[in-house]
Amino acid sequence: MANAYNIAVVGATGAVGGVMLKLLEERNFLVNNLRALASERSVGQTVPFEGVDIEIEELTPDSFEGVQIALFSAGSARSKEFAPAAVAAGAVAIDNSSAFRQEPNVPLVVPEVNPEDVKWHEGIIANPNCSTIQMVVALKPIYDAVGIERIIVTTFQSVSGTGNKAIAELFSQSEAVLESGEAEVNVYPHRIAFNVIPHIEHFHDNGYSNEEVKMVNETRKIFSDPEIGLSATCVRVPVYNAHSEAVNIQTTRPISVDEVRRLMLSAPGVVLLDDPSANEYPMPVIAEGKDDVFVGRIRTDDSAENSLNLWVVSDNLRKGAATNAIQIAELLISGGMLD
Amino acid sequence: MANAYNIAVVGATGAVGGVMLKLLEERNFLVNNLRALASERSVGQTVPFEGVDIEIEELTPDSFEGVQIALFSAGSARSKEFAPAAVAAGAVAIDNSSAFRQEPNVPLVVPEVNPEDVKWHEGIIANPNCSTIQMVVALKPIYDAVGIERIIVTTFQSVSGTGNKAIAELFSQSEAVLESGEAEVNVYPHRIAFNVIPHIEHFHDNGYSNEEVKMVNETRKIFSDPEIGLSATCVRVPVYNAHSEAVNIQTTRPISVDEVRRLMLSAPGVVLLDDPSANEYPMPVIAEGKDDVFVGRIRTDDSAENSLNLWVVSDNLRKGAATNAIQIAELLISGGMLD
Repeated sequence: MANAYNIAVVGATGAVGGVMLKLLEERNFLVNNLRALASERSVGQTVPFEGVDIEIEELTPDSFEGVQIALFSAGSARSKEFAPAAVAAGAVAIDNSSAFRQEPNVPLVVPEVNPEDVKWHEGIIANPNCSTIQMVVALKPIYDAVGIERIIVTTFQSVSGTGNKAIAELFSQSEAVLESGEAEVNVYPHRIAFNVIPHIEHFHDNGYSNEEVKMVNETRKIFSDPEIGLSATCVRVPVYNAHSEAVNIQTTRPISVDEVRRLMLSAPGVVLLDDPSANEYPMPVIAEGKDDVFVGRIRTDDSAENSLNLWVVSDNLRKGAATNAIQIAELLISGGMLD
Repeated sequence: MANAYNIAVVGATGAVGGVMLKLLEERNFLVNNLRALASERSVGQTVPFEGVDIEIEELTPDSFEGVQIALFSAGSARSKEFAPAAVAAGAVAIDNSSAFRQEPNVPLVVPEVNPEDVKWHEGIIANPNCSTIQMVVALKPIYDAVGIERIIVTTFQSVSGTGNKAIAELFSQSEAVLESGEAEVNVYPHRIAFNVIPHIEHFHDNGYSNEEVKMVNETRKIFSDPEIGLSATCVRVPVYNAHSEAVNIQTTRPISVDEVRRLMLSAPGVVLLDDPSANEYPMPVIAEGKDDVFVGRIRTDDSAENSLNLWVVSDNLRKGAATNAIQIAELLISGGMLD
């Protein structure tokens, strides 16, 4: 008989934490004991899980006794403070924040791309950034078939990546603009309703935003390829959920559009949706609520050798965050790596 | 004393036509007689011009008697049918549709880029596509300084480019989604509210949309450079007005970010807005209602030699359409090319 596991969800009241709970149900994850952790101000709230209201417990260093898998999604500061406590208590911490992603002793794992990297974890496994995950899932089969030299990516990122406050702000701003043409601005530096903002996280001295820098560093680590060239432009758009990406790649060896389509049809986690003349291509309204990465608009770019364009859309709360984290937990279980 | 001119606006009830009338006022264009033309179903309506309600007249081949400048923005079919009549009547037709843009005897003009091309017109001058205009205005100073080999562009296009029906649909769909989560779809093949659609105009056999193909062909014609490489991904976003573009270029000779910034500061029609750490970068909410092309997020792309990223935003009804058309008319006047 299969074991059941003791799970802690850190950040259980957040946008990603909520989806983690939903996914543990949906995927029939064998949960023995579930602990829903959040900051002190959420104590008194409950979250639904398998028909039961689970009471939020305050996140403290003592929260992890008996926990085998701690799913962290409460921001970098919380992860830095509490993931070591989870590891010390014997849990594996699967961390959705950026706190540990570039640590050399922390694997950065996308199960469709580098599942073998879970093996060398020392207690913490990092979940990549949402915009990176969906891109590398789509590119992995091409990378394996013909190599990838260079990636130029432009993202259309939904507000759910920022969290529940941003979801509420897009709603309230949209209502206000429809009524009066104006809206109060709180979460982002500018209005997001009926606007686009080319600014995700802080800016580095080279002019790139931190989100853009993450895409470079994380793609290189996940592919174990420090040579891969990548330049990103990351843009917030007034979409509630699911990120879209225009991805231009230069491959090492030539590959045809038909071959790429065939690769996508057999790629794990990828759904090919590429019949534009029948109005079929990936979009947020299609990807929302699904675990897959949707790929379409595959076409040759004649402006350089061995170049291609793809359009990649995925639910950033699911495959970009919660689904990927739970797939990592499933890898640990199927690999017999949990006590 | 300066002459005043007889002007016809074809498509005067449309989104671009309305801005044309507003601009003729704003720019103190010397109008002797103004004719507001539209299809039969608009007859009986009026449009405001300099405090007067101008009655819409039905567009017919006989509409152009005495007209010196005919500003067409009523779609390709109307332009094809009626621009020759305007020319036969002695007018210069400045056509905002795609009907004549690739005709070898029709100049395709952006006044900041190729003003000299107005000289060889034979009655029709074409106004380029909105997404092309703002990009070439931003790239012209770089092209002149160091040459451009290749452009990879991803667009975030507002609904006003489709016209008044699309503006109304974004409004009504947004209201409906906020209320019920669902909305009726009429103008685009999919919901545009809180979504993005990688589909502008019909698709060609090579997988590119007609908007993407236009950007290639028009950029080459405007720069008189059939060798320039360009690959575009054109995407509709839930923004009322102003297009945004992530533009990646490879130049022939190296150029620094600081040099590009200096070029932008002195470039006609360009406003540099590039202080991201102070939250300053171009956005639709900034560009809307202005005639300039806003450029920011200028940064080196280290993934290839001589490569740079820029972020370019402009009001597609203004510089992308009406402003550019009226600037062409102004070029004709200042060049003494009107009877």
